[in-house]
Amino acid sequence: MNNQKPTLYTCLSPALLHLYDLNDTIVVIIDVLRATSTIATALFNGAECIIPVENVPQCIEWAQKIECITAGERDGRVADGLEYGNSPFEYSRNFIAGKTLVLTTTNGTKLLHMALEKGAISIITGSFPNLSAVCQYLIAQKRSVVLGCAAWKDKINLEDTLFAGAVISQVKKHFDINCDSSQIAEVLYQAGRQDMFEFLKTKNASHYYRLVGYGLEKDIQYCLTPDTANVVPFYQDGKLIIS
Amino acid sequence: MNNQKPTLYTCLSPALLHLYDLNDTIVVIIDVLRATSTIATALFNGAECIIPVENVPQCIEWAQKIECITAGERDGRVADGLEYGNSPFEYSRNFIAGKTLVLTTTNGTKLLHMALEKGAISIITGSFPNLSAVCQYLIAQKRSVVLGCAAWKDKINLEDTLFAGAVISQVKKHFDINCDSSQIAEVLYQAGRQDMFEFLKTKNASHYYRLVGYGLEKDIQYCLTPDTANVVPFYQDGKLIIS
Repeated sequence: MNNQKPTLYTCLSPALLHLYDLNDTIVVIIDVLRATSTIATALFNGAECIIPVENVPQCIEWAQKIECITAGERDGRVADGLEYGNSPFEYSRNFIAGKTLVLTTTNGTKLLHMALEKGAISIITGSFPNLSAVCQYLIAQKRSVVLGCAAWKDKINLEDTLFAGAVISQVKKHFDINCDSSQIAEVLYQAGRQDMFEFLKTKNASHYYRLVGYGLEKDIQYCLTPDTANVVPFYQDGKLIIS
Repeated sequence: MNNQKPTLYTCLSPALLHLYDLNDTIVVIIDVLRATSTIATALFNGAECIIPVENVPQCIEWAQKIECITAGERDGRVADGLEYGNSPFEYSRNFIAGKTLVLTTTNGTKLLHMALEKGAISIITGSFPNLSAVCQYLIAQKRSVVLGCAAWKDKINLEDTLFAGAVISQVKKHFDINCDSSQIAEVLYQAGRQDMFEFLKTKNASHYYRLVGYGLEKDIQYCLTPDTANVVPFYQDGKLIIS
């Protein structure tokens, strides 16, 4: 009988992904503000599937091929040529149930494609709204895990690192964690968990201030609230779905 | 009159250095266990200069050209062909005063050369033994700073991140810090500062366990002790010197 625990690593930036072996590994794509929070929310609210794309032209291309909702922002506004934005609040059940959402998410989609090319056996997305669902899934699978932070143009960010730390604090007994980045993420989460909104604010988080500048405090609050949309979005054949 | 503070960024791995603009910037090379700790110690104890090299053959080459002490380890032992190891305890005043030390330090030297190529205006080395000297120097210069962690084969490590956090906690009032990695480093330092040795141990730090495996607890203790060798090593014409 093999009692060895599977390993867990945290990759804090896509620019470090080459350091990790993704073969036979579940990769969790983390893009807390706001891509993976919106993905969990839309699927929780009944979206048929979500097609993540890296840029606006790709999004428009999809709209010419299939019936879908196109979404993406530039500088805090709906991007030219698209219909909706990146806010989880736009994807209520009334609106999104049964529909296909094509979502522009630069950092998250890039990381997802990198993980796919590096041979990840399974790719899911994680965010505070689906924190517990992700943790329960990872524990149940008994496979090696890499938590992949989407970061911001490859720069490590506080919010994705916080989420990695939140996952680690829930699952660590089930994994062999020999990874300094994971330890750093968990220390960060323990320091910030009491009030993550206030934590990002006092720590002068770059992306927090970018979104606050667009008047999106309410989005940030939502994206830092655990377990409001507990589903596990899987990437399969170019789409994110829940089983 | 320009009251704008200079910026400070932290780069947690050499693989992220391309994200930072090093023009007109002071770069602090951080390789806590043990390269930059040994560099500060040897210079504090009167070494004439230190020539950092990336590998053993380069070290041997220098010994054929100049009178020097060659130092470097592989797997916790003095490397074949060299005379001394990487422990700061080997470089007492009696032994090293007035001599040139050619030191093999893979991660630190690589980062140093990268910073040089990217146009850093000044490169110094930082470690707990010279913590306050580095902080005072950075404050006095009133120039932009990048704290560069040497990491371990590009993987972010706890000890270099801790040191970056220690610097930030001393200098932050004098800099404009809009950098999530810096915030993460400072949170880590605040969490670990009371007993950094115990912190690395309980956090299962990879390099801590690598060194403990070689019986080097005493080295780690020394390398985590602030201000025992308060000099500022500058890189100039291929050598580290103090002015």
